[in-house]
Amino acid sequence: MDIKTYVTEKASRAKTAARKLAVLSSATKNAALLKMADELAAQTATLLSANTKDLDEARRRGLSTAMIDRLTLNPKRIGEMADGLRDVAALPDPVGEVMKMVRRPNGMQVGRVRVPIGVIGIVYESRPNVTADAASLCLKAGNAVVLRGGSEAVQSNAAIVQILSTVGADSGLPEGCIAFLDNPDRQAVMEMLKLDALIDLIIPRGGEALMKTVTEHSRIPVIKHDKGLCHTYVDEGADLSMARAICFNAKVQRPGTCNAMETLLVHEGIAPAFLPGMIRAFQEAGVEVRGCSKTRAIVAGINEAKEKDWTTEYLDLILSVRVVKSIDEAMEHIARYGSQHSEAIVTRDYGRARRFLNEVDACAVFVNASTRLNDGYQFGLGAEIGISTSRIHARGPMGLEELTTTKYIVLGEGQLRE
Amino acid sequence: MDIKTYVTEKASRAKTAARKLAVLSSATKNAALLKMADELAAQTATLLSANTKDLDEARRRGLSTAMIDRLTLNPKRIGEMADGLRDVAALPDPVGEVMKMVRRPNGMQVGRVRVPIGVIGIVYESRPNVTADAASLCLKAGNAVVLRGGSEAVQSNAAIVQILSTVGADSGLPEGCIAFLDNPDRQAVMEMLKLDALIDLIIPRGGEALMKTVTEHSRIPVIKHDKGLCHTYVDEGADLSMARAICFNAKVQRPGTCNAMETLLVHEGIAPAFLPGMIRAFQEAGVEVRGCSKTRAIVAGINEAKEKDWTTEYLDLILSVRVVKSIDEAMEHIARYGSQHSEAIVTRDYGRARRFLNEVDACAVFVNASTRLNDGYQFGLGAEIGISTSRIHARGPMGLEELTTTKYIVLGEGQLRE
Repeated sequence: MDIKTYVTEKASRAKTAARKLAVLSSATKNAALLKMADELAAQTATLLSANTKDLDEARRRGLSTAMIDRLTLNPKRIGEMADGLRDVAALPDPVGEVMKMVRRPNGMQVGRVRVPIGVIGIVYESRPNVTADAASLCLKAGNAVVLRGGSEAVQSNAAIVQILSTVGADSGLPEGCIAFLDNPDRQAVMEMLKLDALIDLIIPRGGEALMKTVTEHSRIPVIKHDKGLCHTYVDEGADLSMARAICFNAKVQRPGTCNAMETLLVHEGIAPAFLPGMIRAFQEAGVEVRGCSKTRAIVAGINEAKEKDWTTEYLDLILSVRVVKSIDEAMEHIARYGSQHSEAIVTRDYGRARRFLNEVDACAVFVNASTRLNDGYQFGLGAEIGISTSRIHARGPMGLEELTTTKYIVLGEGQLRE
Repeated sequence: MDIKTYVTEKASRAKTAARKLAVLSSATKNAALLKMADELAAQTATLLSANTKDLDEARRRGLSTAMIDRLTLNPKRIGEMADGLRDVAALPDPVGEVMKMVRRPNGMQVGRVRVPIGVIGIVYESRPNVTADAASLCLKAGNAVVLRGGSEAVQSNAAIVQILSTVGADSGLPEGCIAFLDNPDRQAVMEMLKLDALIDLIIPRGGEALMKTVTEHSRIPVIKHDKGLCHTYVDEGADLSMARAICFNAKVQRPGTCNAMETLLVHEGIAPAFLPGMIRAFQEAGVEVRGCSKTRAIVAGINEAKEKDWTTEYLDLILSVRVVKSIDEAMEHIARYGSQHSEAIVTRDYGRARRFLNEVDACAVFVNASTRLNDGYQFGLGAEIGISTSRIHARGPMGLEELTTTKYIVLGEGQLRE
């Protein structure tokens, strides 16, 4: 079978399944998710054996230690995957919620009800747990999925999907509702992106090259989970110990994430009091600090931050630091270099807090809190499929509600258009 | 200047303008809109003179009467355009509304606030009033626009934009916030669709060829305003006179619109009582009726509906009629042939009303009301930029709220990620 036919058939079955899934009861979906969780845990040995094949191949191909770590399954990670499914089962079903219903002057009632989007294509990279996470969130919101994981995880992903599909079929889910593209050919992704009659939304999760490919070639709407070049601005008069704790947390707690701080902006009025202790704390935690000339005039012996530093998402224990004259200069820097992801101000000043909230354009803007809190669980969504950096449909942490759309319903008794 | 540079410069200035527009007060935006309305009316002569050039060219090129009618401006239409701007000025500003704010267990407050999308590209066809309508709605919601109208209306559109821009500059709107691509070359659209770093959303309004071009070539998210192949299903036991009024309204009141009925589905139990009178009423109104074999067995002398009739959006006084065995057959027909636009059931049965509402997939589903009511004004949105047939971000009538996105705001007092 050629690749186009192979992808089209899977997507086509997913579309048929989506119509049935859309009207399935919450009880059926939840029971299936709980059984899937039990079965993933029960089949730990099967999953580890599939994962070993991926790991052997990864070592043979000389993948980095970090890549191999992301790819690795172990009983603890499989247990967490199963618990993730149980968490999703416990969340309220968004489908069927009537968000708003009004009575119009002619007496008809007009409401908006949440309905599934339809078929969602997920294109992702190495972590096999994304397979179970993404499938469970899409299913709970009544959507069929077409999954396309990284080629390096193909055995692990196939084993996970095999378990989910078997349980799904036994639990009354429509056949084909979890489609998995096990063909590692890149052409499979390209064919998938053309199927705008069968797939309703593409969610890419991964690096810049993947984002670019998907954006350029997709005829299907895309919601990106793109990079985060995040800043924290320490305002004049900020609480110094709060500022230190927030900046430290934003950089060090987990530097490889999209909501970690990459550049620290400090008002010149507070920089001499704040920076020496702050930079020492970073250095003690193994952070390489690169500073602007004003920073280096205050703290000796640190490297120079170059233009490239302001545009780099390090995802590592590296931090660029810039001293600014005012909140305007800070916001100007953020507008120029930021990726509209997570931006924070530490301040005691009401007016500047308000300006920062109003004027900074990002999916999440923080006053006196760590950018690391930009997360579906932290924000109370229960679970997230990622953090959308798109401006359309979903922006910021994307939970079950963002995996639905709406339809208008109109209840009348013979109303006509005049 | 080559076309790529020309389009990029306009879009780039729109992006700069968008940042300023996003934080403009409602008072400034409303004052500008009211002044624009006055100025459009005051410059009626200028607009008519520009429109005459388009009309002369249209006649020279032999455009159809319908096309020429759509293209024509007259004092009444210019007055309506001005009133449209006044209506938009009177609507509440969606920007800045905090939709929801919760306190999380760690004490931080997390809210979602409506913010402008940024730069919106509108690609549309002949009607010059779209220029003023679309620009005013986008501006009110804090967005810059890049307008690309049909080449046949280029003089009229340029004159309208000239007035809006001059008033805008005098009223404190940022320079370049209403960009207009006056180059009629199709390449200008193609270049526009590549500018995903400058334009945040594309809204195409027009025929199938335009939809296809935009979907295939855009790297920017697209919200389609596509065709409507709409059905009304008259259920067994329906109120006959209500069914007649609804079906007549849905077909005849304005047949050239996307929410007009194209196919009538009738339960076989009610068809003998319903169809003869209904079809006579349609025929008296000049509607050509094409029926399935069962329809033709009930009413003699009407043409046969062929497969192609079920898939055709007539946009005209033509109607296809099919007699069905059950609501299931009706919904199956709708799922197969419908365009998920406006679908109605006429019924007295509670259970079947509920099934139709739950199971039919469309941007608006009606019980006992005319599909013609699928409209932003009728639904209470105040004004609409069109009816979205996309499933993402906006579905159905698209008003000011749908021209915004959201950002999360977080108010803390030192919260960290554990």
